[in-house]
Amino acid sequence: MNLPTTETLLLEQKDHALHITLNRPSVRNAMSLQMVHELMAVFESIKDDRSVRAVVLRGADGHFCAGGDIKDMAGARAAASKADENSDPFYTLNREFGRMITQVNAAPQVVVAVVEGAVLGGGFGLACVSDVAIAAESAKFGLPETGLGIPPAQIAPFVVNRIGLTQARRLALLGARFNGSEAARLGIVHTVCDEANIDQELQDVLAQVKRCAPEANIITKALILSVGNHELDTVLDNAAQSFSDCVQGQEGQEGTMAFIQKRRPSWAEDCKE
Amino acid sequence: MNLPTTETLLLEQKDHALHITLNRPSVRNAMSLQMVHELMAVFESIKDDRSVRAVVLRGADGHFCAGGDIKDMAGARAAASKADENSDPFYTLNREFGRMITQVNAAPQVVVAVVEGAVLGGGFGLACVSDVAIAAESAKFGLPETGLGIPPAQIAPFVVNRIGLTQARRLALLGARFNGSEAARLGIVHTVCDEANIDQELQDVLAQVKRCAPEANIITKALILSVGNHELDTVLDNAAQSFSDCVQGQEGQEGTMAFIQKRRPSWAEDCKE
Amino acid sequence: MNLPTTETLLLEQKDHALHITLNRPSVRNAMSLQMVHELMAVFESIKDDRSVRAVVLRGADGHFCAGGDIKDMAGARAAASKADENSDPFYTLNREFGRMITQVNAAPQVVVAVVEGAVLGGGFGLACVSDVAIAAESAKFGLPETGLGIPPAQIAPFVVNRIGLTQARRLALLGARFNGSEAARLGIVHTVCDEANIDQELQDVLAQVKRCAPEANIITKALILSVGNHELDTVLDNAAQSFSDCVQGQEGQEGTMAFIQKRRPSWAEDCKE
Repeated sequence: MNLPTTETLLLEQKDHALHITLNRPSVRNAMSLQMVHELMAVFESIKDDRSVRAVVLRGADGHFCAGGDIKDMAGARAAASKADENSDPFYTLNREFGRMITQVNAAPQVVVAVVEGAVLGGGFGLACVSDVAIAAESAKFGLPETGLGIPPAQIAPFVVNRIGLTQARRLALLGARFNGSEAARLGIVHTVCDEANIDQELQDVLAQVKRCAPEANIITKALILSVGNHELDTVLDNAAQSFSDCVQGQEGQEGTMAFIQKRRPSWAEDCKE
Repeated sequence: MNLPTTETLLLEQKDHALHITLNRPSVRNAMSLQMVHELMAVFESIKDDRSVRAVVLRGADGHFCAGGDIKDMAGARAAASKADENSDPFYTLNREFGRMITQVNAAPQVVVAVVEGAVLGGGFGLACVSDVAIAAESAKFGLPETGLGIPPAQIAPFVVNRIGLTQARRLALLGARFNGSEAARLGIVHTVCDEANIDQELQDVLAQVKRCAPEANIITKALILSVGNHELDTVLDNAAQSFSDCVQGQEGQEGTMAFIQKRRPSWAEDCKE
Repeated sequence: MNLPTTETLLLEQKDHALHITLNRPSVRNAMSLQMVHELMAVFESIKDDRSVRAVVLRGADGHFCAGGDIKDMAGARAAASKADENSDPFYTLNREFGRMITQVNAAPQVVVAVVEGAVLGGGFGLACVSDVAIAAESAKFGLPETGLGIPPAQIAPFVVNRIGLTQARRLALLGARFNGSEAARLGIVHTVCDEANIDQELQDVLAQVKRCAPEANIITKALILSVGNHELDTVLDNAAQSFSDCVQGQEGQEGTMAFIQKRRPSWAEDCKE
């Protein structure tokens, strides 16, 4: 695996998962433009690497991500004062974040977010594009943007896609703050647990991922994300073709054979129980 | 009523409801291509029959449906080996299932699913197109497909439409298994109860259906299913026309009259209390 | 502020909120065509008034709204009998209600619905377009339309947008009735509380609104409502432009400055902790 060199992220591959740690603990892992670009580079580098079947996103030192970086904002303000009319550093700063979460949303791997401490603004948005989100009960979620005079611009659409219009409008327009249990109730995360149990929960999720065939999961995730973007019949026609290809492909043959032979398929050989 | 002859389904009309029992108990009512076609034929035969105001879907011997039929898969594999390039038995097998649940989803009747035991794969998908779903607490839901090396192809779009992207992506990518309470929490079913109370719950639902005017319900279901497929203003324009037609039609006149006269309308004459 | 004169509504501005009371208590605030038009006129009159940052919708005498007005229906019936083919009083009666809730849904202010007692038919629909809905535990929600032989025509699409297809189809096709807790569980309202605590809850919500910058909230609400109507990339491009405009605008500068100076921004000066 050829991972890029990163300054704001710690990267570690364990078994079938790449663990990415947002690592700017002095600012509660606030999302700088550099971090945005490093995340994009990492996901780009693994997109065809089938040894990475899951990506775990987590923050260093007990916080997930406190949102956008204040220094970047100040830098953009300085740059804006001398920018020509064809360049707008604020636009770029914001839009690049949106490109990053769009990319993470569509990553072929199963993306697992483990969220503790601050899950604010951009951090909240990043949590919203995970396939599985595990929150600490004590995590602090919030969309503080409008209290600062700005909209949660790149984040809002992903919040709507995550929890629906009804809850999104209230959260964004009240600048609401809430904990892990409420995040689970609203559907932002799938599971909430005591801090002491998070690592076990994560291991269980990663074990579940291992039981699922890598290619079948990639095809399934792309299928799920395509719903609503095309006519239902088109989605179903394409899905039937994928089904036929998979059944007759290597995974489908191995999966069926393993089922009949009451053994684990090759992609799950070292799964316990 | 001219119901088709069926081998894999038991059919019984009681009062205003047609009860369809998936009846292949030796394979936990696994969905064969024959069962798919028989379900389509039954729904086709009743689509203009106003004496059938509800359809109850249930499985024989304590299981709803364990998913696709293994023998059909084997048969398709044999057929595929000698198929010409214009025919793909796996494609057809899969796509026909999707056509069936698309048809059940849009059936003019109120479709009630009573789900117990195995509610897996295709059975899970069928539960997702009901108007009212009642689950036994002990029911076992799951999307085991990717563990077998194949995608939940025709099912995934209906799961997304049922419970949203956020929960669907986790369930499908982890091959999750869960019981009736969790199915209710996720919104796959509307009600969960002890096995002992399922029949009473079903009777209550069927009594509620009887209180609602048949034509008004048909129009309402079509209206609800059209939301999101057209511009909101177009949906509302058509809805206003339906409203005007109904108010001036037989049901609207009878309903208003009955309300003023404090009596039951004709379609609900034998309702208790 | 130039509010229109109204007969069916009580209007009172307190601080940053306009309180609108549906005021036909003898008919549990049933929605007459006059009330529909007065609501439209009030929202039109405040749409550019930045002193009104929240609108509170509530009903007089312990009921929110019992649905459409029977007398209007009778009037339409009389008018229909002599109407020419180009005019349909039932169509107009119904469609105007839909226009009103479409307008309320998109109001630039934060719309707060406080729902008690009857929340039926049109009242149910009106609750479904609020940004924040607070229900009394004892409130009685329901869609009784199909029991009267008519579809919940203008309401159904807003119920689907509020709580999704899965729950909407059951509620509408069974003419279901339920209380405030169930309404919260289904996502129709955000909060449920004892009648004694409703006023405090409302004050808390209005205080939260005050902490959020007025223009940023308007932009955020429009952004959230645009999701799903345009390609995601288009939504995100427009959002980045809004972000840049806001950051460099008056609110963005004041908000950032206030944050650094650890003081309240101008729009929240009199907020208590």
